[in-house]
Amino acid sequence: MKIAVMGAGAVGCYYGARLAQHGHDVVLIGRPQHVQAINKNGLVFESAGTVLNIALSASIDPTAVAGADIVLFCVKSTDTQSAGEAMAPHLSPDAIVLSLQNGVDNAERLGTVIGRNVLPAVVYVAVGMAGAGHVAHFGRGELVIGPGAQSEKVASILRPAAIPVDISENAAGALWAKMILNCAYNALSAVSRLPYGELAKGEGVMTVIENVVAECLAVANAINVVVPGDVQAAVAGIIKTMPAQYSSTAQDLMRGKPSEIDYLNGYIVRKGGALGIATPANQVLYTMVKLLEMRPGQEGTV
Amino acid sequence: MKIAVMGAGAVGCYYGARLAQHGHDVVLIGRPQHVQAINKNGLVFESAGTVLNIALSASIDPTAVAGADIVLFCVKSTDTQSAGEAMAPHLSPDAIVLSLQNGVDNAERLGTVIGRNVLPAVVYVAVGMAGAGHVAHFGRGELVIGPGAQSEKVASILRPAAIPVDISENAAGALWAKMILNCAYNALSAVSRLPYGELAKGEGVMTVIENVVAECLAVANAINVVVPGDVQAAVAGIIKTMPAQYSSTAQDLMRGKPSEIDYLNGYIVRKGGALGIATPANQVLYTMVKLLEMRPGQEGTV
Repeated sequence: MKIAVMGAGAVGCYYGARLAQHGHDVVLIGRPQHVQAINKNGLVFESAGTVLNIALSASIDPTAVAGADIVLFCVKSTDTQSAGEAMAPHLSPDAIVLSLQNGVDNAERLGTVIGRNVLPAVVYVAVGMAGAGHVAHFGRGELVIGPGAQSEKVASILRPAAIPVDISENAAGALWAKMILNCAYNALSAVSRLPYGELAKGEGVMTVIENVVAECLAVANAINVVVPGDVQAAVAGIIKTMPAQYSSTAQDLMRGKPSEIDYLNGYIVRKGGALGIATPANQVLYTMVKLLEMRPGQEGTV
Repeated sequence: MKIAVMGAGAVGCYYGARLAQHGHDVVLIGRPQHVQAINKNGLVFESAGTVLNIALSASIDPTAVAGADIVLFCVKSTDTQSAGEAMAPHLSPDAIVLSLQNGVDNAERLGTVIGRNVLPAVVYVAVGMAGAGHVAHFGRGELVIGPGAQSEKVASILRPAAIPVDISENAAGALWAKMILNCAYNALSAVSRLPYGELAKGEGVMTVIENVVAECLAVANAINVVVPGDVQAAVAGIIKTMPAQYSSTAQDLMRGKPSEIDYLNGYIVRKGGALGIATPANQVLYTMVKLLEMRPGQEGTV
């Protein structure tokens, strides 16, 4: 089975590694830094105390999606349009495309760009890039996708490759639940440059998070998305399960990279505005991160 | 006339200088750094292109309020209680006490501490400390106070000393108008470390400011304070009149000092909470500044 992974960040490298380990013909399409390292040394894959060098192909050229049966689309939300446009002309007619991205509208946005259905996948994995072509896996790895023939096929290919796939009637709700977590923590951690455990000690932080979550749920409710479980409790629990974690938005700002805030709190603000739902807390968080993106010299260390 | 100025920051030094220039017996009570410099060289007073050395007394000892006919209380809101307690036993029975502070509840808080009426004064002056015992005046200098016998007396003493005093039936509304300006800009400038002109270019900034102002006005309205004029327009105008200004909160954070945020957005949040009025935008701004105050090493340059 030929599988193309668009985006050689931590998520793309992790799933690419699992599939290559299982013998699939995997190509990772990414930036020169990682592609060069992978073509030289293979993908360095660190997990559960072992380090493997996995031979797979890597390319900076989006035409490498040609012939792939499955495309895992793993670029940042900010790059959905450009990466989609770049690969669209080369997709084989039967390719199944999955979006393994943050936010709730990437699959739809990508679908519009490439003119075909895109399956949104909710990704639960703790991974990070430890260097060029070097992915570190800290835990989990399961995906949740919606029902349908394409989903069944994808699941039958991914599951044997040590990738648990849950086919759920409410994948959309799960995608929202994950985004709401991001809306609650990402900007606060980015602005304060504090990990979640420290963050939680701040005056009023839990009230801010409650307000943000309530606004997100109001928007979800208005478009008939049922977010499963006790979202407020789940969000509050992150402080205990991930106390040392800095948000991806914090990491982006510290590296001077654009964040995904337009597709997190920014999405809630836009959608709330269109629906006439007030989202003042999300608006402040969104605006704060956009202001920090304007500042020169955001580079720093956590 | 003996006049004591409690707090030798820029506001205290400015009004102390004006009164001493006019021949009053002024004592500035402040921190050792400024007191030592003033006792050595006089107060350096820079205004309209001229630099004067003004001889006046300075002391680190709050007992120096003894015998003063008028006390100008000019400490930061965070120090109202401690400075009030320190001077209370030494106030002469007839002393008139004015609060020249930010926020809307300092006069009331100080009144409780010292067991007597305190006149709140709205201060319109652009001043800054240019060094130890060195105050720089950039413009304006007028005060607004409420009506009453004490106010008439204060006005009769201050006006001849080049301090315009407006006695207004709605001094409380003017005090609120100034605080609302602070609520709109202080935290945003502090978190982004941007001056107002740059700040205004940020995505969603004007929406955040509108939301913050609307929440403040709802709280004011609930306690029957009429904030004069078109507050939203006045707040928006600051961007054009003070584009290069960093908020005092931004300056406090950059110097690693505690800010007055508890008495600005924090006041709105507490008062809104007590009145059942939602203040989610103020809550985020308040919490963000408190988070930044938690971080070590906030020192930096603008």
